[in-house]
Amino acid sequence: MSSDLPIGVFDSGMGGLTVLAALMERLPDEDMIYLGDTARLPYGTKSPRTVARYAAQAAAKLVEQKIKLLVIACNTASATALDDLRAAWPELPVLGVVEPGARAACAATRNGSIAVIATESTIRNGAYQAAIHKINPQARVAAQACSLFVPLAEEGWMEGPIVEAVARRYLAPVFPAETARTPDGRMPECLVLGCTHFPPLAGALRAILGEEIKIVDSAATTAAAAAEALDGRGLRSGRNLGQGKTRFMTTDDEVRFARIGSLFLGRPLEAGQVELINL
Amino acid sequence: MSSDLPIGVFDSGMGGLTVLAALMERLPDEDMIYLGDTARLPYGTKSPRTVARYAAQAAAKLVEQKIKLLVIACNTASATALDDLRAAWPELPVLGVVEPGARAACAATRNGSIAVIATESTIRNGAYQAAIHKINPQARVAAQACSLFVPLAEEGWMEGPIVEAVARRYLAPVFPAETARTPDGRMPECLVLGCTHFPPLAGALRAILGEEIKIVDSAATTAAAAAEALDGRGLRSGRNLGQGKTRFMTTDDEVRFARIGSLFLGRPLEAGQVELINL
Repeated sequence: MSSDLPIGVFDSGMGGLTVLAALMERLPDEDMIYLGDTARLPYGTKSPRTVARYAAQAAAKLVEQKIKLLVIACNTASATALDDLRAAWPELPVLGVVEPGARAACAATRNGSIAVIATESTIRNGAYQAAIHKINPQARVAAQACSLFVPLAEEGWMEGPIVEAVARRYLAPVFPAETARTPDGRMPECLVLGCTHFPPLAGALRAILGEEIKIVDSAATTAAAAAEALDGRGLRSGRNLGQGKTRFMTTDDEVRFARIGSLFLGRPLEAGQVELINL
Repeated sequence: MSSDLPIGVFDSGMGGLTVLAALMERLPDEDMIYLGDTARLPYGTKSPRTVARYAAQAAAKLVEQKIKLLVIACNTASATALDDLRAAWPELPVLGVVEPGARAACAATRNGSIAVIATESTIRNGAYQAAIHKINPQARVAAQACSLFVPLAEEGWMEGPIVEAVARRYLAPVFPAETARTPDGRMPECLVLGCTHFPPLAGALRAILGEEIKIVDSAATTAAAAAEALDGRGLRSGRNLGQGKTRFMTTDDEVRFARIGSLFLGRPLEAGQVELINL
């Protein structure tokens, strides 16, 4: 495998662009190919069987382009399909975002009490709970599905009273009022954004939670894990260009992908930069 | 074509069950097959090209089962793919929900001022505006995409302050306050629910609009159009059983389909009644 090959990154849609942005910052020399399966999004309300099938198709498309590392920039697909994809391409390093997210969460707490919010599918699957317990078996994990956060983020309603009201309703069972605390009195110290669509909502969550609760996501720790994986295999690009090329592929509507994607990527994206593909 | 065949009905997911319920009430003797393409929902935020492809696959699946009438119980697919499906099966009567919805709207107004809410795709396509103008060329149509209504309905948040706040934000440009009215002073007299996912939200919309604005949807008028189409071709079931059989097919997760579907159908639905299929 050549160190000149790009890193392949996929997600159900645009949320994974938050991970891509972290990868581009951490690994500026590397070429990348991003695939957003927008024709079938969201993954998070769909069954494991269906998500596994979609993930396998997206991964196969990236492998076909020749890549040196595959990053599943979607918590739902990571929770469901990581083992399958590793088995399908045993030579290829494959990273998900759940384990890096769990690592970030454990590093951010002292009392071992962690809240995870994610899609319905990720929460039901229990992958975050398992990954956190693997690192800290004493951790106490409160988990909450927040299905409406993905469409809210995709509608571009990322702050203001509506997203705060939705967030308050979802967070109420996880961060109970003082009077309703559990007998051990441990309020979660940290909130994990267990879906790559959620980081743009962090401001609204912060407005509800106040300053004391740490909010963490997988983007930076996944980028660090990607750097480690490349270094461990001697696969870092030696070009020192400081500006790898990034290709964008989507399964539906380049214009919408570019418009909403730029909100997640945190920099302008033009429809002309995006290729339309079929899976 | 035999009058004993069932009616085929499809939608992106569960919303079309509001149309199915109207069909079952209007045509109780008829057998029906309902297909919800939940593995790829929603359709309403996707491109015309992708929606047309999905609609063709869903229709082909129903045609393969042998049907005497095809009902596209999805406004997005009706707006995008009705002509294509009619061309693909010229012998089969094919009905969409847009034209019946437009008819209901025109019947409900005296001042010719109509507001349509629907998915992003249906609004952009302009099918409702065109269908209303075909019936009443003088009609004044205000159209508004309400992308979050589908996930809200699918989350089961169909009433209360959150859905009302979302609705207020979407409706503000369509039903301006007295002071902000257009020079002709005509407030829409009628609101068309141009997406089959919206009828369960009617209560929340009513709470905002008050009693004066009529709220109409396509379900009853589509059922009436289906009855007409069968009568016109001598295809009504002659069995007078009063209780046709209904089959349910979904492309993802029978359990979720049954749980959320029963909210739209307005009667209990068990996962055991639902077949899982691939498109």
